[in-house]
Amino acid sequence: MKTKTKYAVGVDLGGTNIKLGLVSENGKIIRKHSVATDASKGPQKVIENIKKGIHDILLASGVEIEGIGIGCPGTVNPLKGTVENPPNLPGWGKVNIGRAVSVEFEKVVYIENDANAAAIGELIFGNGVRYDSFIMITLGTGVGGGIVMNKRIYRGEFSAAGEVGHISINYKGPKCNCGSYGCIEAYIGNKYLTERVKKDLRNKKSPLLFKLINNNYNLLTPRKIKEAADKGDEYSIQVIKDTGLKLGAALASLTNVLDIPTYIIGGGVSGFGKPLFDSIKESLKERVMKPNKSRIKVIPAKLKNEAGIKGASALVFHGF
Amino acid sequence: MKTKTKYAVGVDLGGTNIKLGLVSENGKIIRKHSVATDASKGPQKVIENIKKGIHDILLASGVEIEGIGIGCPGTVNPLKGTVENPPNLPGWGKVNIGRAVSVEFEKVVYIENDANAAAIGELIFGNGVRYDSFIMITLGTGVGGGIVMNKRIYRGEFSAAGEVGHISINYKGPKCNCGSYGCIEAYIGNKYLTERVKKDLRNKKSPLLFKLINNNYNLLTPRKIKEAADKGDEYSIQVIKDTGLKLGAALASLTNVLDIPTYIIGGGVSGFGKPLFDSIKESLKERVMKPNKSRIKVIPAKLKNEAGIKGASALVFHGF
Repeated sequence: MKTKTKYAVGVDLGGTNIKLGLVSENGKIIRKHSVATDASKGPQKVIENIKKGIHDILLASGVEIEGIGIGCPGTVNPLKGTVENPPNLPGWGKVNIGRAVSVEFEKVVYIENDANAAAIGELIFGNGVRYDSFIMITLGTGVGGGIVMNKRIYRGEFSAAGEVGHISINYKGPKCNCGSYGCIEAYIGNKYLTERVKKDLRNKKSPLLFKLINNNYNLLTPRKIKEAADKGDEYSIQVIKDTGLKLGAALASLTNVLDIPTYIIGGGVSGFGKPLFDSIKESLKERVMKPNKSRIKVIPAKLKNEAGIKGASALVFHGF
Repeated sequence: MKTKTKYAVGVDLGGTNIKLGLVSENGKIIRKHSVATDASKGPQKVIENIKKGIHDILLASGVEIEGIGIGCPGTVNPLKGTVENPPNLPGWGKVNIGRAVSVEFEKVVYIENDANAAAIGELIFGNGVRYDSFIMITLGTGVGGGIVMNKRIYRGEFSAAGEVGHISINYKGPKCNCGSYGCIEAYIGNKYLTERVKKDLRNKKSPLLFKLINNNYNLLTPRKIKEAADKGDEYSIQVIKDTGLKLGAALASLTNVLDIPTYIIGGGVSGFGKPLFDSIKESLKERVMKPNKSRIKVIPAKLKNEAGIKGASALVFHGF
């Protein structure tokens, strides 16, 4: 007898867009959808948009779901369903998204920090399947982290653990958005990284890269930098190498403390590809303490842009 | 009916001396003893010395013990009883101390990393009693760390976790013994710290401190620096402040990742006292991410020099 396939809706709440997916229990995305976040209009409007997105996707598919999983930026309390101070959603304070959504749909709703949701996605459906413990790093606008210990998310005492982006590699370094100095995010977060490259382009450090973006700074992306590096552009090669060296330095400190030597790395900046992964590995192996040098693994994420949606949907079936 | 008090021998294996104690189940040291380590004569001689010390203390007290606990430097595998590459015991490789000692005394023998043993001492008998989770920092020759999560030692995947001294605060900083750069140990480990102060004294940075050590660099200790600071010596005050600022920077990265905001700090350099603790707290609160700013606690260790012995003996009764 064939058992009926089960489905969940996975929601990836970003600062600009809310991405949604109808996902089967074994991680297949049946239908995708996206609505604007309207972050500037405040939490009530954003919650309306989430509800609208879910209604849209349920209506279009006509499928019965087991529940809803939502990945959000900020400090999330998965038991209470609350989100606190999400960095890209101004004016939120503490908001109970979980309750608002579960009342609307009369379904179980799981809330998780977005970096943790990406880690869960890799753990259940991606390149984390074969590991008991690993650390997921998402190189996006910021630098996110999700710590998986023995197949579970490590949350810390107050559900605020895993802020890998705010490991400082230089206590006198550049000021970070979080208020500290020299955080790895303040060097290689996409926002900071592209600002630095733009400045260098203004100073004519790479005519080739400048040409590749049609002299238009708004077109500068990690992919363009990789394209220039692939064409042999020394400046772009150096940017990628330097990104890996710095991330490797932060991860060496992390490995020495946590003794979890497996890293899975995703997000836009990871699109730098092999030269980045080689540089991270080299820097990590040079810096980490001896017993872990031979154990270091740096692996690309498998789920790419779908890690958030798939990870959020996995919450429903695996209940993290 | 009064139950008979139970006893264990706690052993603190150091690079210079082996400290031993006969300790009751409730943490009272009945008898103390110390023998030379003879580290330069290799592991077999050191193990002979440990056995000799235990025989001495058992003979002198005539008490029946439940077992023996040993705290060692290096990577310890508590299940196998092995110690690997202890930094201050040259030429060790991997040695099974546990088996050698248990065969000799026909008792259960527990082996633990020395920083973890100190953490266990504080957890069972010291200032960690009232916390479920905390991080113990031992400011000695090096900077040791023991992570307590939910009343258990966190070991990581390969029993190498907790190396707080090798969080780098400057990826281009001074070379550390471990091979990396800018580790907090390379700034504030007693060995590095006193070397730096000696150099400054040669450059006449503090005539008062120079006088306090009778112009004899061998007498320079954290206690002397504290004495000079207490007398208003600006240089010494600055050394203590700077130690706290740097340690706070390392612990901010750690807090952001682990979300365990309680620190218990012991070891010789913690003898700098209140000005050091104030400086650590200030630096940590400035640098840690917002949700944890109000939760930060920096507490002195209670057990002082006896943390190692008491922690090791606690292994026998609490089986970590």
